[in-house]
Amino acid sequence: MTNKTATEWYKKSGAEGDVVISTRIRLARNLKKYPFPCRLSMEQKKQVLLEVKSAIFDNPSALTERFRYVDMETLDDVASVSLVERHLVSPEFISNREGRGLLLLDDESVSIMVNEEDHIRMQVMGEGLQLEALYDTASRLDTLLDERLTFAFHEELGYLTQCPTNLGTGMRASVMLHLPALQESGSLPRIAGGLSKIGLTIRGMYGENSEPKGALYQLSNQVTLGLSEETALENLKGVAMQLVEQERNAREALLKNVQMEDSVWRSLGILKNARRLESGEFMTLVSRLRLGVSCGLIHDVSLDQLNRIMVEAQPATLMSLSDSKNGSEEREILRARRVRELLIDV
Amino acid sequence: MTNKTATEWYKKSGAEGDVVISTRIRLARNLKKYPFPCRLSMEQKKQVLLEVKSAIFDNPSALTERFRYVDMETLDDVASVSLVERHLVSPEFISNREGRGLLLLDDESVSIMVNEEDHIRMQVMGEGLQLEALYDTASRLDTLLDERLTFAFHEELGYLTQCPTNLGTGMRASVMLHLPALQESGSLPRIAGGLSKIGLTIRGMYGENSEPKGALYQLSNQVTLGLSEETALENLKGVAMQLVEQERNAREALLKNVQMEDSVWRSLGILKNARRLESGEFMTLVSRLRLGVSCGLIHDVSLDQLNRIMVEAQPATLMSLSDSKNGSEEREILRARRVRELLIDV
Repeated sequence: MTNKTATEWYKKSGAEGDVVISTRIRLARNLKKYPFPCRLSMEQKKQVLLEVKSAIFDNPSALTERFRYVDMETLDDVASVSLVERHLVSPEFISNREGRGLLLLDDESVSIMVNEEDHIRMQVMGEGLQLEALYDTASRLDTLLDERLTFAFHEELGYLTQCPTNLGTGMRASVMLHLPALQESGSLPRIAGGLSKIGLTIRGMYGENSEPKGALYQLSNQVTLGLSEETALENLKGVAMQLVEQERNAREALLKNVQMEDSVWRSLGILKNARRLESGEFMTLVSRLRLGVSCGLIHDVSLDQLNRIMVEAQPATLMSLSDSKNGSEEREILRARRVRELLIDV
Repeated sequence: MTNKTATEWYKKSGAEGDVVISTRIRLARNLKKYPFPCRLSMEQKKQVLLEVKSAIFDNPSALTERFRYVDMETLDDVASVSLVERHLVSPEFISNREGRGLLLLDDESVSIMVNEEDHIRMQVMGEGLQLEALYDTASRLDTLLDERLTFAFHEELGYLTQCPTNLGTGMRASVMLHLPALQESGSLPRIAGGLSKIGLTIRGMYGENSEPKGALYQLSNQVTLGLSEETALENLKGVAMQLVEQERNAREALLKNVQMEDSVWRSLGILKNARRLESGEFMTLVSRLRLGVSCGLIHDVSLDQLNRIMVEAQPATLMSLSDSKNGSEEREILRARRVRELLIDV
């Protein structure tokens, strides 16, 4: 599944990279002449697929030439789950792969799911905080498709989508944040409560409980109606920057504590030496190490390395990088080996 | 307290060093013309001290010139506890230091406690398994003192001692064994049961429960009466060698387990990186690392290093090596620092 010429976007860290891991913008669009996917026959789904593919591949340009098509029907389970782990598709998208297809940019920063909840779900991802730049790319892609396809659009409501929560701009923008110090301080529930009033939401990336694995949180807009894309992105950016500042301050306080310093260094020691790593423990250790690296406590590991490790040590991605198809013990051994390799030779 | 010219014996590993950490021989002797220490006046204790000191220092020889005298009365608490941690004196010896003195060889391999339970307790220690060699040294020292002092000796009973369990040879020989695999296998209680029938005993070095800290055990003779020194040492050596073989076999089985391999490497990672190490955790980690090193799993750490670490990271020894006299948090930080130093620069 991995393209060998372009470097995948997730191997780099970006702006505000000490706290912001990545940014993602998703646009939902539907074709006017077809019912929503849930009401499409298999025949019609194939037609939608053909139309979207043709809009990309029959009009060669610098951008479209970098796309390749992934036939979801012929993709095996491990490769499918690996797409989810790399955030290229939704878990729902791979649960039933008939009549579905994926268009993927060479560096995996852009993906287009065809026949997920909507006919078209374009997604643009990048390292660090970069809402404007990613929105520019998404817009270009949107324009390109709009020139060749006719989208379902209502003058007052905006873009029509199967689920009314996406109606209007059809845009969901989100920022993945690493908030170990705010999580530790216990102030996140209060912060989350305030956000819903301004149309934003913050959720744990892994696990819906109060302390998500790896202290990874996703901040995103909830409102798509009666608000321009620009305003939604501005609000999101403002809050993201506030959280970045709060997290930085909380980290400073946290790292005066020898207990925390100890835990950061131990995490490095375990990750560099373990011969078996269970997924939950791995997330916790990487989270602590990331805290230490971003605070300048640890110098011989970079945020780039950690971003890559977080993706490549996910269960299915691990399996797809190796030849083995074995069970969880095998996977834990593979994870430990991959982590040691990635912590040493970059 | 540390002599700067001679290298302390405990910084080396010796014969059967993968399992046997050290050997110790202790001889109890009393002066004929005085009552046992528990019935001595302070005045008499000082006289005993003077007589023993003079027997060593007034007769210069290659051996006696390497001794120095440690006045227990003027020694502070930290330095006293450090003597116990280096196995140079008993805990009882430092509990009341009045009228007591210590004669110490430059490399700390020989110590003579004056006015402990008996007037004289000579002790000879060395790395690895070396009962004959150490007994030779103990005998030479015994002869040297015997020429200048008159020991309490009974033709039928042998050497007279305050406690009847030492009557006869007055000799206690012991071997410190690292038995992580036998401990793990649960077979030690059965082995221990068999030993008492042949006049030997095996006990946990740290903690009397079923799983002593660091998997360190002391095998020693219990019978001093009706059995020559040579026979007692032969029995002890035979059993020690059996335990060494059993431990080696158990290790081989244990290390086929990836769980154990993982735990060995993690221990190395934590010891090399931790910023705080609690004493019990430290013992467990060193025990696992020693298992890995002695099985050839880990090459960049030596048994010599581990032997030294085990002594120099004990609480009071740590304190005596540093200028600080602070509490347990300070000690845990010092321990972690010392362990990192010792694991890197040897």
